[in-house]
Amino acid sequence: MTSTTTIAAISTPPGLGGIAVIRVSGSNALKYSNIIFSAKREAFSLLQQEANTISFGNIVNTKGETIDEVLVSVFRAPQSFTGEDVVEISCHGSVFVQQQILHLLLESGCVLAQPGEFTQRAFLNGKMDLSQAEAVADLIASTSAASHRMAMNQMRGGFSNELTKLRTQLLDFVSLVELELDFNEEDVEFADRNKLKILATNIEELIMRLSDSFRVGNALKNGIPVALVGETNVGKSTLLNVLLNEDKAIVSDIHGTTRDTIEDSVNIDGVTFRFIDTAGIRDTKDKIESMGIERTYQKIEQAAIVLWLVDCTQVSEHIEWLTERIAKRAAGKKVILVFNKIDKIAIDEREVLNLLFDQFEGERIYISAREKINTEGLQKALITAAQLPEVNPGDVVVSNIRHYEALQNAHSAICRVIDGLESGISGDFLSQDIRECMHFLGEITGQISNDEILGNIFGKFCIGK
Amino acid sequence: MTSTTTIAAISTPPGLGGIAVIRVSGSNALKYSNIIFSAKREAFSLLQQEANTISFGNIVNTKGETIDEVLVSVFRAPQSFTGEDVVEISCHGSVFVQQQILHLLLESGCVLAQPGEFTQRAFLNGKMDLSQAEAVADLIASTSAASHRMAMNQMRGGFSNELTKLRTQLLDFVSLVELELDFNEEDVEFADRNKLKILATNIEELIMRLSDSFRVGNALKNGIPVALVGETNVGKSTLLNVLLNEDKAIVSDIHGTTRDTIEDSVNIDGVTFRFIDTAGIRDTKDKIESMGIERTYQKIEQAAIVLWLVDCTQVSEHIEWLTERIAKRAAGKKVILVFNKIDKIAIDEREVLNLLFDQFEGERIYISAREKINTEGLQKALITAAQLPEVNPGDVVVSNIRHYEALQNAHSAICRVIDGLESGISGDFLSQDIRECMHFLGEITGQISNDEILGNIFGKFCIGK
Repeated sequence: MTSTTTIAAISTPPGLGGIAVIRVSGSNALKYSNIIFSAKREAFSLLQQEANTISFGNIVNTKGETIDEVLVSVFRAPQSFTGEDVVEISCHGSVFVQQQILHLLLESGCVLAQPGEFTQRAFLNGKMDLSQAEAVADLIASTSAASHRMAMNQMRGGFSNELTKLRTQLLDFVSLVELELDFNEEDVEFADRNKLKILATNIEELIMRLSDSFRVGNALKNGIPVALVGETNVGKSTLLNVLLNEDKAIVSDIHGTTRDTIEDSVNIDGVTFRFIDTAGIRDTKDKIESMGIERTYQKIEQAAIVLWLVDCTQVSEHIEWLTERIAKRAAGKKVILVFNKIDKIAIDEREVLNLLFDQFEGERIYISAREKINTEGLQKALITAAQLPEVNPGDVVVSNIRHYEALQNAHSAICRVIDGLESGISGDFLSQDIRECMHFLGEITGQISNDEILGNIFGKFCIGK
Repeated sequence: MTSTTTIAAISTPPGLGGIAVIRVSGSNALKYSNIIFSAKREAFSLLQQEANTISFGNIVNTKGETIDEVLVSVFRAPQSFTGEDVVEISCHGSVFVQQQILHLLLESGCVLAQPGEFTQRAFLNGKMDLSQAEAVADLIASTSAASHRMAMNQMRGGFSNELTKLRTQLLDFVSLVELELDFNEEDVEFADRNKLKILATNIEELIMRLSDSFRVGNALKNGIPVALVGETNVGKSTLLNVLLNEDKAIVSDIHGTTRDTIEDSVNIDGVTFRFIDTAGIRDTKDKIESMGIERTYQKIEQAAIVLWLVDCTQVSEHIEWLTERIAKRAAGKKVILVFNKIDKIAIDEREVLNLLFDQFEGERIYISAREKINTEGLQKALITAAQLPEVNPGDVVVSNIRHYEALQNAHSAICRVIDGLESGISGDFLSQDIRECMHFLGEITGQISNDEILGNIFGKFCIGK
């Protein structure tokens, strides 16, 4: 696939800096750039420059006025990021200069690039598959070593290789089945049903493993969801502020201040946590507040870690009622019981507190959010509770929800194949399910795609990438 | 001059973007970059790459993990921006990736560049003079066509050429005078005093012309100062907000709200205006307010244009008193009488208004700041009042206060020379004044400089430039 237009955009971060880079891609990249570029040498033309070389000169407007002194890098198809001819103009990082140069390029014949259009062209020109293109965006957005590593592995084709392997196995599988169909009338069975079952089970396990990695991948990419729960006015919002180092939530002494859930992420020792502040749990007649409390329960279900906050100075009469309620929703999750406002009680009162919660079996920690007592201890407890396996260079971890959904669909299809083999359904049904499984895997790499899918993916990129 | 360290910094604007560039400069730029760079080809070394070429490969950390796929541009001394060996690493615009690569470069032996250190090295290595180096910063900060053009002319050496011409003339001059001194005892007069006078007068005129251009240069660079004056509560802050399109000033109905002067710039049709909101002029016993009013008078003196705002609905009884006061301070400036709140009075009341101000001879304009009636008309009047000569490509316009001050000092020195010639003072005094004139001009181009001056200049640059 080739595009007819030549696109241009500012590729460096917006704003003022030492230098900025304007990127041009398309069959006329050299021609259009040459119109506005004037080198110091006589009879110079960008069109005659060799690939991967840099030329120094001026960007000149139609009146002959110099806009900037620049460096122009020339890349030639197909050895470029997009697979097309590419020119990169490195200019002074003035916002005015950047805009002037872009404007001159548009006047020369370039079209303003859409968000992600350079990467989209790289995909369309076969420089990378769709999952690799998506990894480019993940790489740019990565903020921790783990999310960076996942994106880098994916961009370099680790995930794509796994999918290619799967696809090869499925192709072998479907050819065996479809060969039989050709000889249908003779009622032969080329493929040993037991061998087919083993093949299908192997494929199912591979897909399952990739799909399972999403739990880790998603936590690393988007942060480990941590719900802060407890009765009203125990200091949840104050604790959230301390953990996030800012004043995101409104803190007040009025019971039930936090009606809506507020989310934000913070990086603790390289692990990203996504904190979820929730409405205080209590018996309330207020309809809006009741809805907030209902959302709190939902948030507990979405969380991986639950911080159950208790006010040391005002322990509820409903401990059993609460323990039961929270335990019910938090089954299978890490729950940490956090005693807040510890500075307000005497040491010997802690014993009484502990006895009150003897039904609770998880970890306990004592802090004062307001006075920042032992909040570091809480951070350490969070890191321990996160228990994320380390992602090593080369590990394939799925972190994209689109990929996860496609894998789940592929998994359903391969399970139907296994069931079909068990129940001895006919080859044409088997073939259909195998082809469906291949279809879903093809969606990930972009072998199967359409404009809408591509629009969704690349529309979220930044301009100039 | 050569530096012993190799410096590195992120040169593109801070933040997330499609791509970012990390720049390395110094004698070990290739060596240090090569440590963290791994090309796709076997036995590749950056040290063997030709100047002005680009290589594709990976940045790899000490554990062998790939941090990013990058393009590396190689420039060799003296054909580079700094005049040293330079490497530019173009990586994905992730903040994390940018920091990782910079970190690896520092581990390899690079030193983090100070603000403006690349340009400072270009200056120290004779790639540009000091006024050209300063123009680099002006170019990056330029926000209008005029300020961009001035910076570009200066960066390309227009100003430097004028100064070189001046210096040559002064050198000729001083050699003539000093030749006499060598033959002092013989009491000869090699230099025709009349010819010397003509030479000195030419130089004085040249310096004066450059120095005079600062009025335009400063206005173009920093904006034309416009003072908003008038009695309290006539709507000065409201008008300022409308002109600036934001809520910078606090607007209230309490008389005397604006005690401090607030400045901000806005670009109207390519011309930058620097609006100065002032305390309302009135007879007041409030000490702090009195000080504010005193500042108002000072601001009028600093302004090029004065907008005298009058409330149509409440014309002061002290018109004559006011007219006199404002006229006294605004002598030689453009004063525009602005009738505000025009929507609140009937058409036939305007005649009465006009008659009240028959002492005032300048332009009159009718607006409502709150209702945004005819504020465009006021903007047009401002453009007309600005009357800035157009700066053409190649025009030398001084826009830097440091240069202006040096020119003023040089001018004083050359005037002393002219006076000395008139009064027939001895050659050694003449020589001293000519040398002083040369000294001040040398400060502009950096022939005369010291660490403190350089620190002041380059410390204001952005990092990575």
